[in-house]
Amino acid sequence: MSEPLVGNCLVAQSGGPTSVINASLAGVINEALNHECIEEIYGGLNGVLGILQEQLIDLAAESQQTVRALRHTPGAALGTCRYKLKKATDFDRVLEVFAAHNIRYFFYAGGNDSQDTADKISKLAKQRGYDLRVIGIPKTIDNDLVSTDHCPGYGSVIKYISTTVKEIACDNAAMGQHDLVQIVEVMGRNAGWIAAGASLAKRNEEPNAAPHLIYLPEVAFSPDKFIGDIQQVLKRESYCMVVVGEGLIDEDGNFVATSGNAADAFGHKQLGGAGDYLRGLVEENLGIKARSVKLGMAQRAAAHCASQTDNNEAYLAGQAAVKAAIAGETDKMVTLLRGDSDQYVCETGLAPLAEIANGVKKLPSNWINEDGVSMNASFYKYALPLIQGEVEVPFDQGVPVFAKLRMDRVDSQLEPFEV
Amino acid sequence: MSEPLVGNCLVAQSGGPTSVINASLAGVINEALNHECIEEIYGGLNGVLGILQEQLIDLAAESQQTVRALRHTPGAALGTCRYKLKKATDFDRVLEVFAAHNIRYFFYAGGNDSQDTADKISKLAKQRGYDLRVIGIPKTIDNDLVSTDHCPGYGSVIKYISTTVKEIACDNAAMGQHDLVQIVEVMGRNAGWIAAGASLAKRNEEPNAAPHLIYLPEVAFSPDKFIGDIQQVLKRESYCMVVVGEGLIDEDGNFVATSGNAADAFGHKQLGGAGDYLRGLVEENLGIKARSVKLGMAQRAAAHCASQTDNNEAYLAGQAAVKAAIAGETDKMVTLLRGDSDQYVCETGLAPLAEIANGVKKLPSNWINEDGVSMNASFYKYALPLIQGEVEVPFDQGVPVFAKLRMDRVDSQLEPFEV
Repeated sequence: MSEPLVGNCLVAQSGGPTSVINASLAGVINEALNHECIEEIYGGLNGVLGILQEQLIDLAAESQQTVRALRHTPGAALGTCRYKLKKATDFDRVLEVFAAHNIRYFFYAGGNDSQDTADKISKLAKQRGYDLRVIGIPKTIDNDLVSTDHCPGYGSVIKYISTTVKEIACDNAAMGQHDLVQIVEVMGRNAGWIAAGASLAKRNEEPNAAPHLIYLPEVAFSPDKFIGDIQQVLKRESYCMVVVGEGLIDEDGNFVATSGNAADAFGHKQLGGAGDYLRGLVEENLGIKARSVKLGMAQRAAAHCASQTDNNEAYLAGQAAVKAAIAGETDKMVTLLRGDSDQYVCETGLAPLAEIANGVKKLPSNWINEDGVSMNASFYKYALPLIQGEVEVPFDQGVPVFAKLRMDRVDSQLEPFEV
Repeated sequence: MSEPLVGNCLVAQSGGPTSVINASLAGVINEALNHECIEEIYGGLNGVLGILQEQLIDLAAESQQTVRALRHTPGAALGTCRYKLKKATDFDRVLEVFAAHNIRYFFYAGGNDSQDTADKISKLAKQRGYDLRVIGIPKTIDNDLVSTDHCPGYGSVIKYISTTVKEIACDNAAMGQHDLVQIVEVMGRNAGWIAAGASLAKRNEEPNAAPHLIYLPEVAFSPDKFIGDIQQVLKRESYCMVVVGEGLIDEDGNFVATSGNAADAFGHKQLGGAGDYLRGLVEENLGIKARSVKLGMAQRAAAHCASQTDNNEAYLAGQAAVKAAIAGETDKMVTLLRGDSDQYVCETGLAPLAEIANGVKKLPSNWINEDGVSMNASFYKYALPLIQGEVEVPFDQGVPVFAKLRMDRVDSQLEPFEV
């Protein structure tokens, strides 16, 4: 084992939050406290944006209660950003901030853009001879990172969606005579991982239960087939529940929600999304009533319905990042590895940041049934273990209680920086 | 006390489901079992529609497990309808079905349209000399029934919305640099009870917390004021969260958004789209990014986030309906009465069905702050007790488990009836 690298650590969060990204933060904090070579535990506010502006807080000053509460708090407690480091001066500034605060360990939780940023920071530090260990922590409801079996955040979003679909199905079954078609729009700009997850609302051995039809970005959308699919379900069932990913694309490869005929019922062309578009198709072509739900940010913030498995793994990934860095690893992201046994087990591994940064994991096409609108047993085998267990969120006065960081600012050492 | 009326009882559900209407059903079943004068416990499928078609099931044949599970099952387990009895032949048929099955007790869970139906059936039976006791059970997320302090279903929908708003607020706070305005559209066709309930996401002593702006049907909507409101919040906060009721109306008294022209049997227009309308206003007038969420049916089906207080009261209302009928009452609806003490207590009472049928309870205008976009302490005092306690829903394999009735059909005695 290499000589321990003594210095401070910095953790930051990036991209869209998930309901478990703060569990990873708690994992980093708790694990960092175990290692004497880590002197201070700093948090960077708003991802790289705050690092550029030297906005650091002292995480060791937070109470143990607060750190424990982070494990069930949605959003990103440190704040996040979608800022992309581009200019050489940006990267220089990051290293300048790191040097000013003796940051020797950098942990960055995010998706592939964020891991790309971490990779570039890591490589620049090496080139400059600045001793720095950089470990990425996977985070995305989109589940599209390569080299990891799945991503923290995914299990919780599909548990919430499956629960919601199952509940709405009860409502629709009761109202079958009135509301014939229900459309639930879920996130997923480039891949159908999230929409596919809605299929967990039914067991694979109940093919006729809701959701009846799932439309994925992976399957080119045909309005004619869609109308036919609905008619077929309505021959068999008293209602039809449809789940659609927001990134649905037509046969020409364009997003249906931004193509010409996606105008909503009120004529505002840019309004509405894939769900409203499908609702319009049903009402215009079949003359029957359809309803739509757009879960939007509610789905990625739904801590009250998070998966305990996902939550545990997010925490584990945070801990593993610190352990790996202490062990001398750098320029890697923590991955989740699934055991081969029938009983689900998950361990952490590591993969090069560059590999994560440049890849996108697609939903395997052979997990989609031939009908194009449902998932097969391979998907169930993959996804079902990820939604097991319910996170217990404390409620006070009827609503959940979430962590609020006191945010003790670390004194700035440098001149302000214009971003 | 009057001579016990011996015969069968029939319970049915009507209108849009809530996450606790089945708790009322469980209350009816369990209480009916206590009284020997009630010989059979029948359920009518799909409200009056199924009664017309003589679609009755034997509820006493359901297992105790199933009846217990009804207490946390969303939807309406018997099915529901929005069918309005109009023709004299419809009413004749209802009494014919009742007579054929010796129905002497009729319990109908629903909103004011449904209580109107129950009232008419009750009056016709009296006129015809058919001995029948009719008791309505209040049910509506809209909370707009008169003569009752509040309605079963309301506490749960606003608990779910407050929870969701509080969670999304964490996400928005983290993404403040990116997504500036978040709009959450909630139900509420004629009144702002539901939208107002979102204010419980913050305590009244935190006026600056989310939701920052609540737009209610009670306050005529002005686009100019709306844009000004948003600008004011964004001067103070890093993001602005807006909650809007679907039934928002403009200064001329028209709905700002209607989704299509479809109207139901009662002439209600199907609303939806107020959220997208506001989003468009923000993007067009301020040139900043806005996101919207439309909770749709998810909000009234969210059993996994129901209020235990609401759930208990829904059950209590079902029990009270049976007790009242046994005691000789008829043509009344069970009401919920709040005690005068500071400690919240709730008892049941009774009010004439005709009174319920013809009234609509408005959100008191003096509970809305002068800014028109927030609620004052009187509203908090009213609503906060209704969301207390969390219903524990059993999960299996990662998703909630709901009751499924075996639905043993009662043999038909009459010729089929065309509806």
